[in-house]
Amino acid sequence: MPANEKILLELYDIIESRKLADPDTSYTARLFGKGTQKIAQKLGEEAVETVIAAVSESQERLIRESADVLYHLLVLWAAKGVKPTLVWEELDKRFGTSGLAVKEARKKNP
Amino acid sequence: MPANEKILLELYDIIESRKLADPDTSYTARLFGKGTQKIAQKLGEEAVETVIAAVSESQERLIRESADVLYHLLVLWAAKGVKPTLVWEELDKRFGTSGLAVKEARKKNP
Amino acid sequence: MPANEKILLELYDIIESRKLADPDTSYTARLFGKGTQKIAQKLGEEAVETVIAAVSESQERLIRESADVLYHLLVLWAAKGVKPTLVWEELDKRFGTSGLAVKEARKKNP
Amino acid sequence: MPANEKILLELYDIIESRKLADPDTSYTARLFGKGTQKIAQKLGEEAVETVIAAVSESQERLIRESADVLYHLLVLWAAKGVKPTLVWEELDKRFGTSGLAVKEARKKNP
Repeated sequence: MPANEKILLELYDIIESRKLADPDTSYTARLFGKGTQKIAQKLGEEAVETVIAAVSESQERLIRESADVLYHLLVLWAAKGVKPTLVWEELDKRFGTSGLAVKEARKKNP
Repeated sequence: MPANEKILLELYDIIESRKLADPDTSYTARLFGKGTQKIAQKLGEEAVETVIAAVSESQERLIRESADVLYHLLVLWAAKGVKPTLVWEELDKRFGTSGLAVKEARKKNP
Repeated sequence: MPANEKILLELYDIIESRKLADPDTSYTARLFGKGTQKIAQKLGEEAVETVIAAVSESQERLIRESADVLYHLLVLWAAKGVKPTLVWEELDKRFGTSGLAVKEARKKNP
Repeated sequence: MPANEKILLELYDIIESRKLADPDTSYTARLFGKGTQKIAQKLGEEAVETVIAAVSESQERLIRESADVLYHLLVLWAAKGVKPTLVWEELDKRFGTSGLAVKEARKKNP
């Protein structure tokens, strides 16, 4: 199991920290400044690019567009106060992985 | 750091294993059977629902639609042979987290 | 100039008339019953299918998906009280056609 | 029946004529230069903005975004060699308007 799956949580924390950053130097801060509708719009746009990449472009392009989708999804969660853990729990509940990891996390982060 | 971030990699493995499952009992197997265009279309649809949830619905709905986006994104990666690690590396490269986790993972999974 | 461009206005009138139709027999009536979010979601989905058709499928498929986009766009306008004429005027204003047709129409439909 | 429904066909003709225009002065010429994937991407983006406008913004905004969708849809048709008449015929076939207008147009434009 690669250790780098932590990247999404690390990225979420970075994104959270940019809420107070200078919009002149931080793209994320600018996005927050534009509000939920603009962030959601960006997510939609990146999803469209991912769709196009998947059906008509290279694997390399699919990887890059997928990264854009994940980044903007995390910004949207941060804007709406949704912790990644809440989405992991939803996935766990729905797709029948053991559920153990979720319970363990709850104990540590009550 | 909650342990349950492993969920995406676990889910990816489950999805991979469904490539050979019975389409009559597995939604994921049916999706694979329909091909990349249909999987990409589903990703696009779930992204639209996430956008709508973010701008006009509840946090609960945003969480559920986000889970749908992640699930279909993982199915799309599996269909196109993209390992999650490749996307984590792209995020790491781009968003300037330490990069240590990625390098560590590479050593363990050369 | 083919006469059948009237089709969009005729279709809009049909759609309007379905607001009072029986949801059991009319798809359009069912859509109205589900509300703006669902209608907007359908528009988004059909747009995704049009994108996929354009970049990776046949001209025939592009034609069919485009028809779906136009139909759901008209339903969305009807749900929000937007007459097609308002959109034609916006196009006319923006894309520099003569403007004569718009002015003429205003005189007839004050 | 307002006369200005002709706007879509007029706009299509204008768009067609821009295929040979100078990309430095024509946005449409630039779009054609970027190819089908980029044009389809723009259509997807404008559809997302229309969805957002419909569920959370003003009628005025919905009108403007709808105009953007129609313009980019027409550019996509022009890029793929789809005449508007083909889509009108599909709508006529599917949504059960009289069909007379289509037949009439066919006689005049065999």
